[in-house]
Amino acid sequence: MAKAKTNRRMTKRDYEARVPAVREALIQLQIALQPAPFPVLLVIAGDDASGKGDVVNVLNGWLDPRGVETLAFHDPSDEERDRPPMWRYWRSLPPRGRMAIYAGGWHGDALAADPRSPRELARFDATLARLAHFEGLLTEGGALVVKIWLRLSQSAQGDRLHELEADPDTAWRVSPDDWKFHRDYERRVRLATRLRRATELAAAPWHVVEAADPRARNLAIAETLLARFQKHLRAHATPPAPKKPRRITPLRATGLRRLKALPLHHALSESDYEAKRDKWLGRLNRAVRDATQRGRSIVWVFEGWDAAGKGGAIRRLTSAIDARDCRVIPIAKPTDEEKSHHYLWRFWRHLPRAGRVTIYDRSWYGRVLVERIEGFCRADEWRRAFEELNDFEAQLTAHGIIVLKFWLHISPAEQLRRFREREVTAYKRHKINAEDWRNRRQWAAYEVAAGDMLALTDRPKAPWHLVPADNKRFARLEILRASCRQIAAALEKD
Amino acid sequence: MAKAKTNRRMTKRDYEARVPAVREALIQLQIALQPAPFPVLLVIAGDDASGKGDVVNVLNGWLDPRGVETLAFHDPSDEERDRPPMWRYWRSLPPRGRMAIYAGGWHGDALAADPRSPRELARFDATLARLAHFEGLLTEGGALVVKIWLRLSQSAQGDRLHELEADPDTAWRVSPDDWKFHRDYERRVRLATRLRRATELAAAPWHVVEAADPRARNLAIAETLLARFQKHLRAHATPPAPKKPRRITPLRATGLRRLKALPLHHALSESDYEAKRDKWLGRLNRAVRDATQRGRSIVWVFEGWDAAGKGGAIRRLTSAIDARDCRVIPIAKPTDEEKSHHYLWRFWRHLPRAGRVTIYDRSWYGRVLVERIEGFCRADEWRRAFEELNDFEAQLTAHGIIVLKFWLHISPAEQLRRFREREVTAYKRHKINAEDWRNRRQWAAYEVAAGDMLALTDRPKAPWHLVPADNKRFARLEILRASCRQIAAALEKD
Repeated sequence: MAKAKTNRRMTKRDYEARVPAVREALIQLQIALQPAPFPVLLVIAGDDASGKGDVVNVLNGWLDPRGVETLAFHDPSDEERDRPPMWRYWRSLPPRGRMAIYAGGWHGDALAADPRSPRELARFDATLARLAHFEGLLTEGGALVVKIWLRLSQSAQGDRLHELEADPDTAWRVSPDDWKFHRDYERRVRLATRLRRATELAAAPWHVVEAADPRARNLAIAETLLARFQKHLRAHATPPAPKKPRRITPLRATGLRRLKALPLHHALSESDYEAKRDKWLGRLNRAVRDATQRGRSIVWVFEGWDAAGKGGAIRRLTSAIDARDCRVIPIAKPTDEEKSHHYLWRFWRHLPRAGRVTIYDRSWYGRVLVERIEGFCRADEWRRAFEELNDFEAQLTAHGIIVLKFWLHISPAEQLRRFREREVTAYKRHKINAEDWRNRRQWAAYEVAAGDMLALTDRPKAPWHLVPADNKRFARLEILRASCRQIAAALEKD
Repeated sequence: MAKAKTNRRMTKRDYEARVPAVREALIQLQIALQPAPFPVLLVIAGDDASGKGDVVNVLNGWLDPRGVETLAFHDPSDEERDRPPMWRYWRSLPPRGRMAIYAGGWHGDALAADPRSPRELARFDATLARLAHFEGLLTEGGALVVKIWLRLSQSAQGDRLHELEADPDTAWRVSPDDWKFHRDYERRVRLATRLRRATELAAAPWHVVEAADPRARNLAIAETLLARFQKHLRAHATPPAPKKPRRITPLRATGLRRLKALPLHHALSESDYEAKRDKWLGRLNRAVRDATQRGRSIVWVFEGWDAAGKGGAIRRLTSAIDARDCRVIPIAKPTDEEKSHHYLWRFWRHLPRAGRVTIYDRSWYGRVLVERIEGFCRADEWRRAFEELNDFEAQLTAHGIIVLKFWLHISPAEQLRRFREREVTAYKRHKINAEDWRNRRQWAAYEVAAGDMLALTDRPKAPWHLVPADNKRFARLEILRASCRQIAAALEKD
């Protein structure tokens, strides 16, 4: 039996005859990848003790190490544990033109949990759904995701563990868990099947490779990678260019109606404002401290018209929060590093640690506002984005982050008044430029886009607060009040 | 007595009369800073319970929060503990055009250690020297570093602690340590004095501000910041442009002589090479595992002529290392984020965690090689860099990181042969471009610069290995041998 198996193995001679061409092709792949508009993610996952590490090392020897990075997820660091589970995978992503090999993939963490009880299995399934969603995002963003599953029979697994233990150089790699899993082989294989099913995507299918014969295994993996890359390169070398839409029509009219119906004028005397403001600032201070002392983080999102008063509102807010725990992230043009990643990467990047606060001055909603209107992304991209943004926020709230979203709404007449004021006031002049005037001419388009955003991304756990802001003082109070209420409600459920 | 003190305090009326102008000036500062070629670092340090947090919050209320970030160093995370102590400060640095307020500064960590024994005090002094060096680097890199020290008398400190404890909103801020330090006031003040003396720099002096009167304190700090900024802006608005030097003359002739004297031809048969290579790869694998299992990190640095074989050498190296613990960082043109920071920032950024390996393919030595020769930095900058680079590496080795530096040396004739080979070989053509030919014409200049580098940055704990590389196989063996030896020697001292 053992003999028969050996016979089926690829001979060293055959292997060595084929390796040079494969290596040459891999180097060519790397050359072709450099200018390509996408990254390559190669996942090497597999059954326990199936030789994932060996495969990764062989591939690294074949590739030019300067264009590829190997990533393995060890125990999460405290900075990682402080954020939603997917954060560590997001931060690891290679920029376009580069390749990353994931030893074990993000799937390894899920399998390491070794779920058994129905409850653990339900959590496992939820994790898998999240991983599938993540892979969907990446592939829809253009990334090539090649997922290899190394399959190893129980007897071959036993042979391999014995073999590793026999060699003093590799004996340390065999842990008691490995033998435990070996005895429990059937159950582990069922988990793996469940994992592969849940994360099987048309754009990122699993390639199951027999792992018992290392030579055949290495060649099969390289050839799979090469074939997938060639196909992907043909399909994605020049992605369809986005173009500026001629008209912006609503997807869901309710949002636009909600905006149009908002009464914008609210009287509020200066003295009345000051008394109320101080009361609410005090409350907000306590609410934020309550939250952060329990390890809850808070994310504020500010969107709204140019000159709607986002900056002033943020300033009032920060005056009530301990500055040592709070960061304000102004979202402007992405840096070149940011541009070479998925559009959500730069927002993941700035997520607060547990017990800290991040205020985004403009946000991920740029995707369905300016990017939609100016044609910075394609129609299929911004259409898809509503769900993507909802899911992103769902990950934050599931991790216990309190997400507060504000749309500051003003009338065109009030905006004009503020633009003119900015132009004649020395210390405000830097706040107005030609782009603001250009945006203003597209009022109707922005109104439609904002309406769709409000209609499609208003969620119970991450609701939009629509703030009438023609009266700045009233708007600021509204923001304080709504923030206090939402934080208190979130903490009550603890 | 308490009465007299109250009388000296600034009245609310006086304060409110002066605040608007100060706030206006701070906003103007932020506007002027945006296009400036430097960042602003404002350190708010001070005696225990002197109100550092309050000051930071007041300043944040006055400034536009979109242009300023507040940083406070809490307990180090495990990712921070895994790297040299200064890593957490480097990663926090603002890019040019932005301001960061450091609550407690990097000085807070040093004082929190509360040194008492002569040994602890010696360590304290060493920390302070490192902080002073850090500030020197930043200011010489153009940064404006404004350091405020809040001074509080023992009686005022007692008053403040009582006051904080009396208010339910602030009582949590008083810890048993605060009272302990209060009783030990004299000793704590001596430590603070020692700290200020050791970190007093002409370009980054301490501004001592009396903290007992919060209003006067706030205004004094804002005015200090404004004055320092105005002066700095005048001096640094247009830093002297670097220019390409006409001739490159050696600073230290020994390095150039060492290079010229290196015999480049070494015979080595293919079969002899293969046998030896496998032996040394095995040894290297064990050496790296020995190191990483003990939590030691390894940093390899590869420098050398174009086509000297850096890529091939790195590839052989990585074939012996578990790819899951190893990253190769190719150093090319900096990204725009990297360009907006101190030139060392991008190297700090990629330092390995404990027990991991980073291979830099080209490195921080670009400062004294291509930047010196092409005039990408000024003469005073590259001259200073030798010491800066030595110090950077000293921080790595002091943290237990093993630093292996290789210069791959070939003859001009051999380079020409390889360039031509690259031009005619399909899969090598991407490796040669016009810049390589341009660099080649400056052979003598690079030789001088490399000689100076070898002479001035060869240190016992981070020595340069000069590798004759006309024979690629010989060079690869040399690198394996030297790496094994240096790692073994470093571990022996454990």
